[in-house]
Amino acid sequence: MKAEIITIGDEILIGQIVDTNSAWMAEQFNLNGIEIYQITSVHDDHQHILEALKKAEEKVDLVVLTGGLGPTKDDITKNVLCDYFNTKLVFHEPTFEQIKKRFTKFKIDINKLNRDQALVPESCSVLYNKVGTAPGMWFEKNDTIFVSMPGVPFEMKYLVEYQILPRLRESGKTKAIYHKTVLTQGVPESMLAIKIEKWEDALPKNIKLAYLPNPMSVRLRLSAIGVDAEGLKKQVDTEVEKLQQIIPDDIYGFDNETMAEVAGRLLKQQGKTLAVAESCTGGYISHLITSVPGSSEYYKGSVTAYSNEIKMNVLGVTERALEEFGAVSEQVAREMALGVKNAFRSDFAVATTGIAGPGGGTKEKPVGTVWIAVAGEKKVFARKFVLGNDRERNIIRSGQTALQLLRRVILKGL
Amino acid sequence: MKAEIITIGDEILIGQIVDTNSAWMAEQFNLNGIEIYQITSVHDDHQHILEALKKAEEKVDLVVLTGGLGPTKDDITKNVLCDYFNTKLVFHEPTFEQIKKRFTKFKIDINKLNRDQALVPESCSVLYNKVGTAPGMWFEKNDTIFVSMPGVPFEMKYLVEYQILPRLRESGKTKAIYHKTVLTQGVPESMLAIKIEKWEDALPKNIKLAYLPNPMSVRLRLSAIGVDAEGLKKQVDTEVEKLQQIIPDDIYGFDNETMAEVAGRLLKQQGKTLAVAESCTGGYISHLITSVPGSSEYYKGSVTAYSNEIKMNVLGVTERALEEFGAVSEQVAREMALGVKNAFRSDFAVATTGIAGPGGGTKEKPVGTVWIAVAGEKKVFARKFVLGNDRERNIIRSGQTALQLLRRVILKGL
Repeated sequence: MKAEIITIGDEILIGQIVDTNSAWMAEQFNLNGIEIYQITSVHDDHQHILEALKKAEEKVDLVVLTGGLGPTKDDITKNVLCDYFNTKLVFHEPTFEQIKKRFTKFKIDINKLNRDQALVPESCSVLYNKVGTAPGMWFEKNDTIFVSMPGVPFEMKYLVEYQILPRLRESGKTKAIYHKTVLTQGVPESMLAIKIEKWEDALPKNIKLAYLPNPMSVRLRLSAIGVDAEGLKKQVDTEVEKLQQIIPDDIYGFDNETMAEVAGRLLKQQGKTLAVAESCTGGYISHLITSVPGSSEYYKGSVTAYSNEIKMNVLGVTERALEEFGAVSEQVAREMALGVKNAFRSDFAVATTGIAGPGGGTKEKPVGTVWIAVAGEKKVFARKFVLGNDRERNIIRSGQTALQLLRRVILKGL
Repeated sequence: MKAEIITIGDEILIGQIVDTNSAWMAEQFNLNGIEIYQITSVHDDHQHILEALKKAEEKVDLVVLTGGLGPTKDDITKNVLCDYFNTKLVFHEPTFEQIKKRFTKFKIDINKLNRDQALVPESCSVLYNKVGTAPGMWFEKNDTIFVSMPGVPFEMKYLVEYQILPRLRESGKTKAIYHKTVLTQGVPESMLAIKIEKWEDALPKNIKLAYLPNPMSVRLRLSAIGVDAEGLKKQVDTEVEKLQQIIPDDIYGFDNETMAEVAGRLLKQQGKTLAVAESCTGGYISHLITSVPGSSEYYKGSVTAYSNEIKMNVLGVTERALEEFGAVSEQVAREMALGVKNAFRSDFAVATTGIAGPGGGTKEKPVGTVWIAVAGEKKVFARKFVLGNDRERNIIRSGQTALQLLRRVILKGL
């Protein structure tokens, strides 16, 4: 089954809100084997909505509309639907009862605009909206189903989960689909493509592979479509196992896992603790780690040392190292990691020192120069990176890279 | 001028990512007097992209494409564009030089796929992409302009800001428009509307006012449209001056300033320094502060104390306070602020301690309970907040609120 999502309303088109509804719906429908052919955002404009409906009907089996069902003048979706399905608005008593109940509960008087929310196109099936005043609507025309919902996220979600998906499942219109995303790190997209070319070419026809790169990693998404959900999962898992044989060191996690979660899970499994000393990342690594619920189980804390004075007094970095090698140096990174490890009595420690930019660069140490050190249980490792000129991106990349080096040190038992 | 945004790629249609690019672009184009007629998301499918281009060309003057320009097989936008504009791919030497430079800098070998990124449709003007390997492209057909960009957010943003908008402005396709956003804090939207009602009613007809509330502040955006850019700026500045007379204490900044920038500017002006002690915010405040270029001039650093042991050993919080009042208490927040102020020898200090969630709440101190302390030059202030259940939002709100309290303490010379 193919679907199109049409969102109605000006907020998205003037950039006032981000369209999170469509992403949520797309995921839900995909998980039920309904492919989203297109997402279209249009204004509250009668003619424009009509055209979007017509174009969608030509292409898909299911048209999902959100928005334009509020009580004010700019909400015109119901009138457009009457026009499109050649029907008229009628008063729907059960909906009105539901509106009255809600208003009584919140002790608000009902006015004409609220009463009008009980008007629905005569030819639709009304979808009960337990969490709001505007009901959902279900239309069928030739072989296409049309559903219309409010744009308020929790009302839309209720209608999709409890009204629309159950009806589609009953009618046998949903397919089995299975996705798994493999998270890789350290290999650029083009090199990865060459490394796994044979595996990719040998994938079963019903499995699609997508490369999803971002500045820190390349995600590989496998999507299998078929009839038997269990079989698809097995099929994808088998392919992922093969992939793990080919690039074991490049894979760090699956699906929506973050590097901070992956490293945190390893620490928890081993009953070990972590501390962090940050200079150029300025608290970002600590923020990533503490964004994970339950991180207090393995995380002791951090020091952001934004001056040499703090590096010496709080972390115990030696004056000699600072004078001889400078604040951005292997020596200082190592001493910072060891310093915070001792002060916080942790099993592992991570440290960063670098020039995030835009100022502070020299010919020898340009903006983007970063030293990262990881103190393991036995040894301290340090590595130099030369990143770009953008402060924000330098902070993000340094932070993610530090977590990744930490993960390797923990994994290797160093 | 009317535009349509077409995003190409499966990630949005399967709900794997939220389409934040379109919201950003919609805002930027609107700010330049270009109305977004429609936003359309389509798959990496040759025929589908072709159709979307055709339909858009019928309706709008500017078609903005993002996505599908990566080096791998699933990226087909350039081929579709060749087809649509009846042209062929040619090798673009300056783009290849740019790719080589990037790869040399990052010490990566170039392979065939990277080399192919220098292939562009012969009939386009190449838009230099300073921050990535895939260039932007500019086509003209009849009276419609088509631009194609990578979907990587920072590359897209670079191309819109530095290549596309300047060209559109040069060609006189944008309107003269001037925006200024006034950042207010501490007054809810509805109360603010009453406070500034007379001023709002007296605004010149060509100045539009928008209330843009978010969880932390209400932004007031003034947009003036006309022909003479200089005149518009003067007109808006005059109105903003009037507004400053009415609500001097509620305004904390302008346009894209962050609270960290505002507080940092105050510290710099006064030649004072800052240190931070974080528990529930876990490094986030330090990250906000150090995201500001030049923050090392006034920022000494921070301690993230994720355990009582660290609060005592590193920050000097007393065992008595922890035992008698608990880690989440006014007493501990105050001691943390004073502790880091002493240890880091700063003029000001901020401290947070709270329960970010989802675990750790009790009946007396539910999830969302946060104590924030600010140590000024003379006194220490502390305030309790009861936020919600969402960990991420609790961290963000606590961090922003802490900076806000800091700003007030600095301003009042306390």
